[in-house]
Amino acid sequence: MPPHAPRRAALRAMLVEQDLDALLVTDLVNVRYLTGFTGSNAALLVAADPQRSTVFCTDGRYLAQAEAQVPDLERVIDRPCDLALAARAAKDGHGRVGFEGQHVTVDGLAALEQVVEGLVGASGLVERLRLVKDDAEVEALRMACAAADRALADLVEHGGLRAGRTEKEVARELEGRMLDHGAAGPSFDSIVAAGPHSAIPHHEPTDAVLKAGDLVKLDFGALVDGYHSDMTRTLVLGKAADWQRDLYDLVLRSQAAGRAALLPDADVRAVDAASRQVIVDAGYGPRFPHGLGHGVGLRIHEAPALSKSGEGTLSAGMAVTVEPGVYLSGKGGVRIEDTLVVRESAPELLTLTTKELVVV
Amino acid sequence: MPPHAPRRAALRAMLVEQDLDALLVTDLVNVRYLTGFTGSNAALLVAADPQRSTVFCTDGRYLAQAEAQVPDLERVIDRPCDLALAARAAKDGHGRVGFEGQHVTVDGLAALEQVVEGLVGASGLVERLRLVKDDAEVEALRMACAAADRALADLVEHGGLRAGRTEKEVARELEGRMLDHGAAGPSFDSIVAAGPHSAIPHHEPTDAVLKAGDLVKLDFGALVDGYHSDMTRTLVLGKAADWQRDLYDLVLRSQAAGRAALLPDADVRAVDAASRQVIVDAGYGPRFPHGLGHGVGLRIHEAPALSKSGEGTLSAGMAVTVEPGVYLSGKGGVRIEDTLVVRESAPELLTLTTKELVVV
Repeated sequence: MPPHAPRRAALRAMLVEQDLDALLVTDLVNVRYLTGFTGSNAALLVAADPQRSTVFCTDGRYLAQAEAQVPDLERVIDRPCDLALAARAAKDGHGRVGFEGQHVTVDGLAALEQVVEGLVGASGLVERLRLVKDDAEVEALRMACAAADRALADLVEHGGLRAGRTEKEVARELEGRMLDHGAAGPSFDSIVAAGPHSAIPHHEPTDAVLKAGDLVKLDFGALVDGYHSDMTRTLVLGKAADWQRDLYDLVLRSQAAGRAALLPDADVRAVDAASRQVIVDAGYGPRFPHGLGHGVGLRIHEAPALSKSGEGTLSAGMAVTVEPGVYLSGKGGVRIEDTLVVRESAPELLTLTTKELVVV
Repeated sequence: MPPHAPRRAALRAMLVEQDLDALLVTDLVNVRYLTGFTGSNAALLVAADPQRSTVFCTDGRYLAQAEAQVPDLERVIDRPCDLALAARAAKDGHGRVGFEGQHVTVDGLAALEQVVEGLVGASGLVERLRLVKDDAEVEALRMACAAADRALADLVEHGGLRAGRTEKEVARELEGRMLDHGAAGPSFDSIVAAGPHSAIPHHEPTDAVLKAGDLVKLDFGALVDGYHSDMTRTLVLGKAADWQRDLYDLVLRSQAAGRAALLPDADVRAVDAASRQVIVDAGYGPRFPHGLGHGVGLRIHEAPALSKSGEGTLSAGMAVTVEPGVYLSGKGGVRIEDTLVVRESAPELLTLTTKELVVV
């Protein structure tokens, strides 16, 4: 059975709890989560009462696609969808209609208010459901992570990582190989950072040439069925210097500590701290200038944030990254990142590429 | 001279006109337009008084990039940028601070209001400036269109369009060839639609195989320096049937009529009507179910909309697409699209690929 009807049922229970008659879902990712629709324009009106119709809206370009992907819901073909469904909410006599305040713009709300009364800010309800992944979601994440794993294995095996190539060439080959393994595309702009560039946490690939002795940091992922994988590996080209091995070993221990802390009921700040402490103890605290990780799913960055300023605790079924890094400006940096799912006794690792220091 | 300072000067004049002391620019594309910054997180506080500091904000990941790309402005490194600059507006004593109501979410405004008083909705100011492209922008659009032209020429020349290949394979080769010609990537998800699929206005490439006699519709573009090209060509594989030639000729005449109407002071609805009338006269009005075109620039879709429901008139320097189509469900469809710049006597064509019916 497709997972979308149970997700809508869970949302209806939240609407009852929030004393809302309906929710106008306009965030396209949330619409996809609740319906399976993959087009670029849609909205959904979910009634709290299961006896009332849940109405899906898209525009004429997606008529056939909507019939195929959303066969189980009443469909409206109109444009703009948010206003069409707001009018429908008024017609259906819904008294308190929630809107997604984290997504609807100030101008967008003003337009909605012309069409329906009783709009109530109701932010983050679908996002709260999306925190814990169901089986279909974990399976998509698994496939996305596998595509990235295989692409990197192919790249290394076919000599794609070698002195003389540019960062851009490596990024392009890596992205092509993810397509070979079933990805719809990269899940974000790939980072390929060689030598001193590896010390820049977010580095856009350039025409800089890989050289023997370089640290090469690869941060990339695949998009499969709308789900994003996210993995970083740092390799050495040629022969690893002692400082590179030491740096790698430090980050590896930090990453292992972060993964070990990934358990149900753990405070997200404690997970960040467990990993960070290893780096702080080594005297490199200021060289780890970002959070430990983030949730991942239909968006590459979603809740929960594993960081000093994060909030809340983990639950089984959450999918997150663990990605500490140490960056020595002008010299080089190491980041090691996995995508994992929180499970009862130990997290399930989805990115399976070795974390031994690979020297190519 | 970089074009960003004159753009900010033009914006300051609008702020004076709107009786605003400052504008908080949070739309990332608008920030790029006003500063040249290409990172994924930034905001800008533009003071109406040229003697007051214009302040740029990004986060620590982009420290070096901000120094390189935005050397001429005061820089704040903080996160989140919108709140940091709202606090700065309060500190600088700005009384009336405009915010971008078409971009700021309802929740986002509530957070800003905790930090600064006197926020005033001021939507679409930078977008109004962006309507008319300056020389640097037209040059970027020209390069983006050239990359797409060359990619399609290469694809055809190297036999990439042939029976037996899948839509996905063709899309992937086309996108790769755009990279070869300097694109940072495709400007949107490429459409490759063969046979009956060509009758679907927006069709995602599938594993469907191209067959002799198929219409093949290719709608794609290149991204260069942040600017998007957009072009559609429809070809025939093997030998064109009479109905295919007739359909192609009809759309070609409609497209020519649309291009001819593209003049300064023309009402956008009149441009749509000029092209549409050709198709209506042939009895195919209902088979042309979308608008004629759209503005194009730092976004693939921006103002002005050339459609029945569009508003306003054209000005020299606007960049738009002209893309009529006729879609015969289950059979096939033809769309022909160019990207052009409105000029005094006749539009400047940026997509230079032939519009003769190409049979490959």
